[in-house]
Order: sequence, then C-alpha cells, then structure tokens
Amino acid sequence: MTTTQPSDDELEQLYADFYTQHLEPLWTQLGTLMPIAPTPKAVPYIWRWSTLYPLAQRAGELVPVGRGGERRAIALSNPGLGGLPYVTPTLWAAIQYLGPKETAPEHRHSQNAFRFVVEGEGVWTVVNGDPVAMRRGDLLLTPGWHFHGHHNDTDQPMAWIDGLDIPFVHYTDTAFFEFGADGITDDTTPDVSRSERLWAHPGLRPLVGVGARDSSPIAAYRWEHTDAALREQLSLEDEGFAATTEPGHAAVRYTNPTTGGDVMPTIRAEFHRLRSRAHTRPRRDVGSAVFQVFDGTGRFRLGDEVTPVSTGDLVAVPSWTEWSIEADTQLDLFVFSDAPIVEGLRFARTQITEKA
Amino acid sequence: MTTTQPSDDELEQLYADFYTQHLEPLWTQLGTLMPIAPTPKAVPYIWRWSTLYPLAQRAGELVPVGRGGERRAIALSNPGLGGLPYVTPTLWAAIQYLGPKETAPEHRHSQNAFRFVVEGEGVWTVVNGDPVAMRRGDLLLTPGWHFHGHHNDTDQPMAWIDGLDIPFVHYTDTAFFEFGADGITDDTTPDVSRSERLWAHPGLRPLVGVGARDSSPIAAYRWEHTDAALREQLSLEDEGFAATTEPGHAAVRYTNPTTGGDVMPTIRAEFHRLRSRAHTRPRRDVGSAVFQVFDGTGRFRLGDEVTPVSTGDLVAVPSWTEWSIEADTQLDLFVFSDAPIVEGLRFARTQITEKA
Amino acid sequence: MTTTQPSDDELEQLYADFYTQHLEPLWTQLGTLMPIAPTPKAVPYIWRWSTLYPLAQRAGELVPVGRGGERRAIALSNPGLGGLPYVTPTLWAAIQYLGPKETAPEHRHSQNAFRFVVEGEGVWTVVNGDPVAMRRGDLLLTPGWHFHGHHNDTDQPMAWIDGLDIPFVHYTDTAFFEFGADGITDDTTPDVSRSERLWAHPGLRPLVGVGARDSSPIAAYRWEHTDAALREQLSLEDEGFAATTEPGHAAVRYTNPTTGGDVMPTIRAEFHRLRSRAHTRPRRDVGSAVFQVFDGTGRFRLGDEVTPVSTGDLVAVPSWTEWSIEADTQLDLFVFSDAPIVEGLRFARTQITEKA
Amino acid sequence: MTTTQPSDDELEQLYADFYTQHLEPLWTQLGTLMPIAPTPKAVPYIWRWSTLYPLAQRAGELVPVGRGGERRAIALSNPGLGGLPYVTPTLWAAIQYLGPKETAPEHRHSQNAFRFVVEGEGVWTVVNGDPVAMRRGDLLLTPGWHFHGHHNDTDQPMAWIDGLDIPFVHYTDTAFFEFGADGITDDTTPDVSRSERLWAHPGLRPLVGVGARDSSPIAAYRWEHTDAALREQLSLEDEGFAATTEPGHAAVRYTNPTTGGDVMPTIRAEFHRLRSRAHTRPRRDVGSAVFQVFDGTGRFRLGDEVTPVSTGDLVAVPSWTEWSIEADTQLDLFVFSDAPIVEGLRFARTQITEKA
Repeated sequence: MTTTQPSDDELEQLYADFYTQHLEPLWTQLGTLMPIAPTPKAVPYIWRWSTLYPLAQRAGELVPVGRGGERRAIALSNPGLGGLPYVTPTLWAAIQYLGPKETAPEHRHSQNAFRFVVEGEGVWTVVNGDPVAMRRGDLLLTPGWHFHGHHNDTDQPMAWIDGLDIPFVHYTDTAFFEFGADGITDDTTPDVSRSERLWAHPGLRPLVGVGARDSSPIAAYRWEHTDAALREQLSLEDEGFAATTEPGHAAVRYTNPTTGGDVMPTIRAEFHRLRSRAHTRPRRDVGSAVFQVFDGTGRFRLGDEVTPVSTGDLVAVPSWTEWSIEADTQLDLFVFSDAPIVEGLRFARTQITEKA
Repeated sequence: MTTTQPSDDELEQLYADFYTQHLEPLWTQLGTLMPIAPTPKAVPYIWRWSTLYPLAQRAGELVPVGRGGERRAIALSNPGLGGLPYVTPTLWAAIQYLGPKETAPEHRHSQNAFRFVVEGEGVWTVVNGDPVAMRRGDLLLTPGWHFHGHHNDTDQPMAWIDGLDIPFVHYTDTAFFEFGADGITDDTTPDVSRSERLWAHPGLRPLVGVGARDSSPIAAYRWEHTDAALREQLSLEDEGFAATTEPGHAAVRYTNPTTGGDVMPTIRAEFHRLRSRAHTRPRRDVGSAVFQVFDGTGRFRLGDEVTPVSTGDLVAVPSWTEWSIEADTQLDLFVFSDAPIVEGLRFARTQITEKA
Repeated sequence: MTTTQPSDDELEQLYADFYTQHLEPLWTQLGTLMPIAPTPKAVPYIWRWSTLYPLAQRAGELVPVGRGGERRAIALSNPGLGGLPYVTPTLWAAIQYLGPKETAPEHRHSQNAFRFVVEGEGVWTVVNGDPVAMRRGDLLLTPGWHFHGHHNDTDQPMAWIDGLDIPFVHYTDTAFFEFGADGITDDTTPDVSRSERLWAHPGLRPLVGVGARDSSPIAAYRWEHTDAALREQLSLEDEGFAATTEPGHAAVRYTNPTTGGDVMPTIRAEFHRLRSRAHTRPRRDVGSAVFQVFDGTGRFRLGDEVTPVSTGDLVAVPSWTEWSIEADTQLDLFVFSDAPIVEGLRFARTQITEKA
Repeated sequence: MTTTQPSDDELEQLYADFYTQHLEPLWTQLGTLMPIAPTPKAVPYIWRWSTLYPLAQRAGELVPVGRGGERRAIALSNPGLGGLPYVTPTLWAAIQYLGPKETAPEHRHSQNAFRFVVEGEGVWTVVNGDPVAMRRGDLLLTPGWHFHGHHNDTDQPMAWIDGLDIPFVHYTDTAFFEFGADGITDDTTPDVSRSERLWAHPGLRPLVGVGARDSSPIAAYRWEHTDAALREQLSLEDEGFAATTEPGHAAVRYTNPTTGGDVMPTIRAEFHRLRSRAHTRPRRDVGSAVFQVFDGTGRFRLGDEVTPVSTGDLVAVPSWTEWSIEADTQLDLFVFSDAPIVEGLRFARTQITEKA
C-alpha cells in the first residue's frame, strides 16, 4: 500500500491513541526489544569476600534473625539492574550469616535454593525434617517446596552463599511461600544426612526410590567427593587420558541421580579446577552464571577487563559475555547458572574462541 | 546470637554500606520478593477488536512497512506493566496489518512466533522459503530462528494477531536476530504449504523426518481441522461419550507431531468451544495466557469482574488470576500461554473451583 | 594355567558331569551362540495372495468361528522356523477371514495387534467398545490389553491381514489373555470410529487426552490420508523439494500422536510407494519385517534371489537380510517390523549399499 | 456364515494344504500360543556353588582358554529348556574360571555382559582398554560392543559369574561379534579403573561426559559402596525412617548415572539384603531373573517348593513364578533380570501377596 506522506499531527495523534488504548508500536522499539544478540542490562561484576564477610558480620551484630525477615541474607545486587537484589536477571546470590546458637525458622517456597560453603562449619540446614551438616566445600540443596530452616549449633558464627532462582520466579509470577515451624523440627547434628545415607552411593539407588524426580534427592554433595573427582581428572590427564574439559581444566557437574540431569529444574551447579598457570578458552554462553572462587588466586577476563580474584570472591557473568579465567595458583571455582532454563527452552548457544 | 539493640545510626550506616557495595538485605524485602502466592504486576485486561482494527488501519495509512521497522505490528501493553509493550511478563501479542500488495521483509530471531487469523485472508507468510497461506481460523507457526516474511497478494488489507515470547526472551537475555531478504524469497501463493503437504496427515510422519524436533514442523494448523475436532467432541458428548473437558466445553491443543508436546518450546496454543449457555469452572493456573474471541459472544469473569466479549476481543489473564467464561452464543476462543515454560521448569499449579 | 594334555576319558567325564548338573560349556558352542553377524533361522519367503485367499475361503466354508478358537486366522509359518506359526522369530502374520454376518467374539491379550486391509470391506472391529470400520488400505490398531471382536455386517465375506507380536511375547513369557463378550458389545456400523473423531486431526489432540500413552489412541489410519501423504511426497519431489526417502520412493510411518513414536511398543508400521520403474537401494537392518504388496507389480531382491510380486503377496525379511525392491508399475507396499524392540533395546544397525 | 458340517476328508485336505503352503491355523493352537498367563518352559531351578566350583576347577585343569573358544565359561542350562545353555529364555548365566596367569583374549559383541564376584580376586577385566580389578562383591559391566578380555595376574585361580542377554540376542537375531587382541591391550593392575575415577563419584559427572548414554559408563560397582548403601537402609529403618523395601529388606538397584535407569539396555542388576529371620512378601513378576546368594543362608520358596540356599548358589526364577525368600542368617543376594526388556516394551506386571 503506498502511503502518502502523513502529517506530523496525524502521526502524533496515532501514537497518542495507541497510548490511550494501551498499545505500543513495534517498529519504533524493534532494535531494543529484539536485538541482534543479547544486550543484558546486568553487567559483569565482582564482589570481594573481604568486603562481604565483614558486612555480614556487622549485620550479625545489628540485625536479629527470625520469623518475618526469615533469613539474615544479604543479596548481591547487580549494578546494571537498577538496585534490584538480583545478581543476574534470573539468579539470586547472597551471603547468609548465622551467629552462635542462632536459628533461622522453617519455611518453604516454590523457588529452588542451594547453599555453598566457602569457609566454616557448624550449621545444620534441616530440609524436610532431615538435618544436613554444612561444611567447607559442600553443596547443599533445597529444591522448590521443601521445608527448610537452619541452626548454628556452635559458639562460632558461620557464613555461606545462598543461590536461588528468585528473580526468575518473581518475573514469571510463579512464586509460592509457606511458613513452617518457628524453630527447627529436628535439632540433632548428625555428620551425614539421611538423604545422603539413602542416595549418595555412586551408581546405586534405593529400591524405594525408583523413577525420575524433578530435583536431586541428594541434600548434600560433600567436598571430599568433589575434590576426589577433580583430582582424578587431572591425574588421568597426567597419564595421557581424556578426562579434562581442556588442558589443565578439570570440571564436574552436580547431578540429579534419578535422571542424570541438573540438580534442580532451573539451576545448574558445577565445580571447576584449574591447574596453576592454566587458563580457559574464552567463551560466551546464552544465559547467566555466578562463580565463587573456592580456593586460590587468578584472574577473570570479562569482556575486555581483567580482574584478579581470590578465595571467596563472587563473579557475575551476564548472558553472552565473553569470559575466561587464568590461574596463578591451583584455582578452585564453584559456579551456578540458569543453564537448565536456557537449554530446556531451547535457547542455548555457545561461542568458544580457540586460542591462536 | 543475642544482638544488643543497635542504634539507628549503626543500622543506617550498615544499609548505606550495603548500598555502596551493591548489596541488598533480604529481610526488608522478603514479602515482595517471595510472596505467599503470585502477585503479578500485570493486570487482567481486555482489548476490543473494534478499537484495535481501526487503529491498525490508520497505522496502515500513516506508517510504511519495510526494512528497519520490519513489521507494522501494534503490541498490547498490559496496563500493569508500566508502558512496556508486553501483554504479560512473558508474552507479546500484537495486531499486525498489511495493506494491499505490501511486503514485510524477511528476518529470523530466537523468539518463537505464531500468527492467528480472526478475519480476512490474502497474505502469505513465507517460513524458511515455504509460502503459507493465512486464512480465517488458521494458526501459523514461525518457531525460533526460522526466516520469515509476509506479503499481501491482494487488493485488500489484512490484519491478524501475532503471538511471541519477546518479553521472556528479553528478560532472560536470550535474543538473537538476523535480517534476511528485503523482499520475499518465494512469492508464489499456493493454497497449501509444503510443510503441510509433508506433515499435516493425521498420525503419519514422513520417513525423511523421524526423530524429535524442538518445534512443530507443521507451519499451518487449518481451521477446517480445528473446527472438525471441536464439532466431533461436542457430538461425542451428545452421544454420551467422554470427549469434552467439562460439560459443553470442547477443547483441543495444537501439538508438535514429532513429540506430542506443545507446538513450540515456550508457547502453548489451544482452541476452545463453548456451547451456547455453557460456562467453564472457575480456575487459576500458574503462568499467563491470552485469549482471543474467535466467534460468538459471552462474558469473561476475571477475578471479581465480569466483562462481555465478542469476536476479536483479546483478554490478558495474568498468573494465578481466577477466570471463567460464560457463553451467550456458541463461543469459540483461541488461547495461547507460557505453560511450556511453567510446566517444563516444574512450577505448574492449578486450582479449580467446582461449582456449588 | 598350563594344562597338561587331558585324556579323552577325563574330558568325556567332565562333559557328562556338566550334562548331569544342567550345565553347558560355552567354548564348544560359541560360534553358534555368538555369531559374527545375525544368522537367522527364518528365511526370506514369499506367500502369494492367490494362494492365501482361496485357502482362507475354504477355511471359511469348513471351519466355524467362535469362542475357543476365537479367530479364523491362518498364520504364515516361516519355512526356516520348523513349523512354528511364526513369520519371523518376533512377528506373527495371518490372513483372517470372516464370512457374511459372522462374528469373532471379544477378548483381550497382552500381545499387540493390528489389521491391514488389502481388499474388501464390511467388517467392523470393535476395540474397547468402539466400532471401527475396516476398509481397503486402512490400518487398524488393537494395542495390548484392549478388548476386541469383529463382525461382518454384510452378505459378503471379508479377509484381511493380522499382525501381532505373538512369537516375541511367547518367547519372553509375557503373555496374558482374557475372554470377553461372546458377541459384540456394540454392533453399530459407523463410518468413523469414536477414536478417530477424537484423535485423527492433524497436529491436534483433545484436551481430555494430554500426556504420553504407550500406544496410539488412533484406532484407524485411513487409506485416504496415507494415500494423500504419499502423493504429496512424490509431488514435492517433482517440484524439486526433499520429501522422498530416495528418488521415486515415498514413505510414511504410522505414529502414536501422543509421542511421535511408533504406534505400539513392539511393532512399527509404514507404507511405501515406489514410482513405476523406481528401485530402492539395497539395505539390511537388524530386526525382521513383513511386507505386503498393496497395489502394483514389481520384484523383491532378497539376498541373491529376485522374485516378482503383485497385489496381496506377503514377503518375510529376516534380520540382516539384504533386500531391495524394483517397481514395474507404481508399487504400493505396507510393511511392519519389530524395529521398536530392536531400537528400544539399542541393537539397531543398518547397512545401505549405495548404487554404483 | 453358516457352514455345513464338513467331511473329515475335506478338513484333512485343508490342513494338508495349509502345511504345504507354510501356513498354520490359529484356532488349533490358540491356548498354547496365547495362554491366560505366562506358561514358561523354563523351570525354577537351583544350582549349587558346591557343585559348580569343583566342575569349573576340573575344566580349568582339562580345557585350555584362548582364541576360538574365547572363554572358560560353563553355562547354567535350565532343565525346562531342552538342553539349551540358557538359564531363562532371555538370560545367560555362567561360572567363568581363569587359572593362574591365564588370559582370556579380547573380543566384543552386541550382547550386554556383566560379571559378579562371589569369591576371590586377582583377575582384571580390560574393558575398551581400561583394566578393571575384580574383587569379591563387585559388579563389573561390559555393555554391548565394548572390547574386553580378562587376565589373571596371580598364582591363584579365580572364578566368577557372567551374566549376559545371549538367549534374547540369539532369538531376536541381533548378534554381532568381533575378535580383538589375542592378549590384553593393557596388562597393568590398578586398584581402581579409569572409568571409576572419572564416573564413580556420587551425584557428580565429568563435564567431558554430559548427555545420556545407552549403558552405564561405570565399569565397576564396588562392594564397599553396595554394602554401605544396604547397611544405611537397615540403620535408617532402625531409626524409624522409610528406607527399606519391606521390613528387614534392604535393596539397591545398580544404575546408569547418565540417566538414572538400568545399567544396560536389556539387563537389570540389584543387590538385596535380608536381616536374619526376615522374609520377603511372595510376589511374581513378568520377566525372568537369576539370584545368586552372596552371603548367608536361607530358603527360597519357588511356587510351592521351598529349598535351602547358601553362599554361591544360583536360583533361576522364570516369568510369573511366585517367589519369596526367608533368611536364616543375614542374607545377601545379587540378582539380575530382563526387566528393562519387559518394562521398556510395556509388558510389566507384578502381583504381590500381602501377608495374612
């Protein structure tokens, strides 16, 4: 249809009428809405453990924990996201702090959660009534709609990292929440949880638990297993066998043993180990991730910027941001991401830059 | 840990330090972030075809279509979402208008798209080089990363509804876009697309296409099949056999014949028919949906509000909003939703109120 | 361990003791038990319709049909299988014959069954109470544990082909059987079954039937759809588009619309059409198959032997037997096989000989 | 059709003509072919370790092992199966014996295989070049088409149980076989295989190995893990938590960690532990199984017959045979079955008799 040159007035009136009728033209916003490649508002950013821990400690002194506020958790707020307590648009990451003998009351929610421990011990998280000890290097799961509370059995405070899909759940309006016991339903302090006793045996499943489950039934992935798996990959590499992701780079994915898939429907968790002086190939992926340095020192390259990191530091990697890591010492890294969302809905792409 | 009553200054300083370090406490925002049940910002809202069509027509007169703006599509902007061109947080819905002999150029994007035709004909959408006629009652698919353009072969304008996952893709930073031919790669105007000739035979698949595909290979779901399926359900009900979803309520889901699942990874599409005077049980679901009245008159109950609807009207139903429909005449409704996202990531819940 | 040369007596005594204790050495039978490639006892064989039909007719005159014998079905007995009524080790194929006004009583069994009609009409098979007309070119399903009986509503006899997994079920001791009504639970004679009215709409499924099912809910795959699908493939080939399996060779697989997979857990069914003078590439597959010529004339090459075939002829193709087909006229072929067993248990291999 | 009473001659001629034409009537064989419930030819039977081991030892003295015969394996031949070396129609079980310093050469085959060790050690099975130590209580896998050979590194003989799907593969004509190295491609004797080092970490998978695999990549399931898993189930039961299959009956299934499913496409493997004096509920399942007593004494009830068993004894349980077990001491049992075939093809049924 040949359109005669419209007057500015006519166009202005059209757009005004759109506005009144709760309509928006596509043609004026196409580039923003449908960019050539992802244009995340979230930015690459690094939070220092040396900053986080003292602030959590001060919160421990000034802010009580209990019913209502529920948790003394301080969220990483990506500088690109306008003050929202989101580390990326889909993921939430926080440092949680529990003082000596403190208890965080029980509740459950549709959001999937995990905890990862970079230092300390002495807290038990009670998941659907099962007390789960939290120790350095452990990954602890609280899949959606599992009741959970935490209590510190010691005279020392303890801090750890929480990871959840709060932003995703909030955005998609899929949130449910229910308060549970004000205290802890089981305050025993076993070394090993019942879920591990039933489920954490390599390649074995209890006959009472056949069939696929939405989330992993293993409440705790213990450091000794993760460490051993990584150590073996590097040894196998030394012996000349294909076992590492790339030279000097060992990596495991935490899985749901009932399916072989990710631990929870929205969150992937992995642990990576770089040999001293090793580096990863630069890559970018659709979807966002958060690394925490577990041990060692090195450098993150995020886009064009290179930043040194050390134990406890947290690194936000937005979607389609190129990243690579160089290790100074042996470098151990925990990482979680929204990859199950991206892969499950068929949006996954990866671009890897082979070294020249 | 017993915390001594902190001074206001100390607390203020703590929160200031959080802010400086890009941190946010959870305890002050818990109720907002993690509500008891979904609290969508999107609101139930109805757009009238009698408003939409004339505005699209005026846009047809005033705004050219072509490379850059790409499409003369006017998006429904949910009044609760602050002016964003989103019908719900995950879904995009627009009326698209193409004048006589006009062409919308080819492009492709990671967003999944469909078109649904409530009136008119004469446009062919060319999907990966396959010209697909668009006629009243047809559902036309353009799954992610399929090239597509449209051209109007007639001397009459044509308008239809576009549905996409633009908001979801934008939020999760999974968007890719690529320009294609400025014109149309195949301007023939066959009655039936090649994809239908290969795939739209009940219960049959071509031997060249075995194996599961992410999206349906059927480019067009024709009205005659949809209508026949609904008519048969009501006849079977008349004959005393279980075939309808509830009394007087026939419904079909459009599926991907290679899996039996939804047509595209993020979007569910269904067609519902209510007998005259029939009504649906009030229900609410996690996830959002958009109805378009295809034919007939009736009333939507959205929360406590009851609103009459007629042919072409579009209805946004946010997550966990109770809805029901009452038919005055036989009432035909097309509906699409983000159910594959919600179900795939295990957030699905439904609450159905049985009639007293 | 170095073994001193045993005396014949010692060895003889050892084997005798094995025998007494119900033991068998592997080393003497390895080549038979574990051959280099499949060594089927079943042989390629062709049964002529011109022989089958008159014999069925004579059986119709001499043998009543009713409770106990249940069916007037005459099974193809592969000459290599020692008189067992098996067309291959896993599959059963028979011609079934029903005289004017005769009824075969209802029963159900764990065996999966289908019927395919090469000529005639007038019988209804009643599957779980749903009367299904049988007409030339139709594929009718009776998945495991569905009640079924047949009745001839006309004054003409009718014959068709039955295919089941009887040998497989018998060998694996998975057979269950239950008698049903002595007559027919619904003797109406509708043109279209209820299952088709609910399920046989391309790409659509009723909302009352979401979720995967073990077997296809479509009781009848009608000839007009099969024929149209094949015709379109050849037309698309004429127009220069990839649609055929190889030049001049159109083919469709009958599928379970709830999964996109095979119609039943153990049986694959397909229909092939060769243009006049077309030929297939020689191939062999793990697993056995049975072809029936539906229309036309041509030649089957089975191993080194070439045999002419015409309408109604049935061809057994044992596992790993090389086969190819040459068409004299347009040649239409129905084929069923045990491919879901072979593929599901991961034994599938195919070897295709490209033409010189 | 009313049939006039046929003369005996006519009928006789009809059946003779059937015979000549390689046809068989269904009506005369229906009950045999399609019984009311499974009528296995295989019978329940128990082989004594005290018989098997000395015979294997004599074979070790009299029969060399090497290329051609390949293995010194003595198969259990079910008395109901007419002398075939099959323990059930689908399963093969043998005692294999390797003298000091002997080697069984490498080969591969489409048949899936495992070994289970009831006593002894000192042999390494080399699976696709990976040496896997065999020790008491271990389950060792050799999935289809993996090269494998065995060598005894010690001055003591060793015997173990082999389990394969040879009968099923033979019956379905899916067998392929290929000779490999005459010796052993890697004669090192590590305590732990490379496959375990890469894969046998609870809930973890190497990033080099994502995606589902047909068979488990874990070559060895070690006794210490199996034992620990069973011990924990009984402890949890003692503490009042649901962990056992029934009172006093712990059980684990060996799984493929990439899917959570069975270790191989055709074979299920489990380990059961009964407390002293515990007994299982009588049950019967479609499909066949073979138990080996690993430790302890008790009684098997098979149908109406009760038989005492002790360490090493092997018990064949045909399809649909009722079985139960009573433990005198703590009773440990390894069991394998064809359940993946039966379940995968949808023939599974179980009948459990609750105790009065």
